[in-house]
Amino acid sequence: MLLGKVVGTLVATRKEPSLEGLKFLVLKQIDIEGKETGGYLVAADAVGAGVAEVVLYATGSAARQTKVTHQRPCDGVIMAIVDTLEVNGVVKYDKVEAD
Amino acid sequence: MLLGKVVGTLVATRKEPSLEGLKFLVLKQIDIEGKETGGYLVAADAVGAGVAEVVLYATGSAARQTKVTHQRPCDGVIMAIVDTLEVNGVVKYDKVEAD
Amino acid sequence: MLLGKVVGTLVATRKEPSLEGLKFLVLKQIDIEGKETGGYLVAADAVGAGVAEVVLYATGSAARQTKVTHQRPCDGVIMAIVDTLEVNGVVKYDKVEAD
Amino acid sequence: MLLGKVVGTLVATRKEPSLEGLKFLVLKQIDIEGKETGGYLVAADAVGAGVAEVVLYATGSAARQTKVTHQRPCDGVIMAIVDTLEVNGVVKYDKVEAD
Amino acid sequence: MLLGKVVGTLVATRKEPSLEGLKFLVLKQIDIEGKETGGYLVAADAVGAGVAEVVLYATGSAARQTKVTHQRPCDGVIMAIVDTLEVNGVVKYDKVEAD
Repeated sequence: MLLGKVVGTLVATRKEPSLEGLKFLVLKQIDIEGKETGGYLVAADAVGAGVAEVVLYATGSAARQTKVTHQRPCDGVIMAIVDTLEVNGVVKYDKVEAD
Repeated sequence: MLLGKVVGTLVATRKEPSLEGLKFLVLKQIDIEGKETGGYLVAADAVGAGVAEVVLYATGSAARQTKVTHQRPCDGVIMAIVDTLEVNGVVKYDKVEAD
Repeated sequence: MLLGKVVGTLVATRKEPSLEGLKFLVLKQIDIEGKETGGYLVAADAVGAGVAEVVLYATGSAARQTKVTHQRPCDGVIMAIVDTLEVNGVVKYDKVEAD
Repeated sequence: MLLGKVVGTLVATRKEPSLEGLKFLVLKQIDIEGKETGGYLVAADAVGAGVAEVVLYATGSAARQTKVTHQRPCDGVIMAIVDTLEVNGVVKYDKVEAD
Repeated sequence: MLLGKVVGTLVATRKEPSLEGLKFLVLKQIDIEGKETGGYLVAADAVGAGVAEVVLYATGSAARQTKVTHQRPCDGVIMAIVDTLEVNGVVKYDKVEAD
């Protein structure tokens, strides 16, 4: 899994019917220092994430292993909202402080 | 999923038989600012997309989770046509304005 | 899917038994202008492609969705031979002219 | 599989329910000389790895082939802790010496 | 599939139980000219490959389609040992000459 920051939303009415009801969020990929890496992803939201939150996302077939994405043409899903990230004994991100 | 812009079509008569009837579109990958990233993809079309439209595409095994691509040797599919893309409160793309 | 040009062949007698009879072709990846991108792939041939032909190939689990590659340890397959590629109204490749 | 060094932990309470109980570790990718390559991964831990250990991780659908990750939305797993790595007759890593 | 050269071995005693008995080899990726590309992979060995041999490897779910890797958390497998590689009519590699 990689880290992302939710920065936006995408709306699409003409789509594969099985995608009806799925919420698409726009993520900027970030590294473990919280810096943007330049990449982005449009991911399905399985956890009720909101703009500005730091999340964990899975890609590939793993993205279909949630209730909302099962058997749908979806290759990226937000499957967790990050509370804390600690690297080499240093807290790099703490959701309580960030909020 | 990533964003793409439909720029062309590909025709192939000699192919795996299961691909008969599938429409192949040529996409240029774009980022969330609408800029081309340099990459391209030939994707199956599951939603009736047309040239110049901004679409969302899925790759990998997710690309076989549509009615037209099920169990076919296809690793990329257009599964939605983008209506609006909003990033950090700014509308980056609006299909109505673009049309 | 991506575009490739068949440039060679690979022979391997010591291999996983299920691969017996599968033909391996060497592809150079090309972009939609027909330029080589620097990448290559050794792909199974599902369509009887020949050296110098421009083909479409699929990777990942999609590569096992052909009759010759089903349930085999193969992650790349040529699933179509390109007839024409048209981008922004311009024919970038036409097999009849190329032959 | 690729080599990684465990450098931290990630805690997430709001997540897909099936992920309950899974431990997420932060890895820095390393090459066969033990140098960091710049990449990272948040991986599920299937083997009880600890910070500073050199591990082997698998990505994609392979990451769901362990007892703790089966059918979960997880695309990276630590499936082995490296004892020794030998390249061209030279021991590049030996866990006993490193500990 | 891509080409690799076997350069070493990896030993891991603490691992997912299903991996017991699997041999891990270290590969350097090479291109069709036989030059190292800078990448590496730790792959399961399905064909009895040895150090210095040029091999073909598959990644992703294809890596689980051999007898030794079936349903195991393994994302890379050596599935063939290359005998000859011919590109544009020139033999780029011949195992008999290399041995």
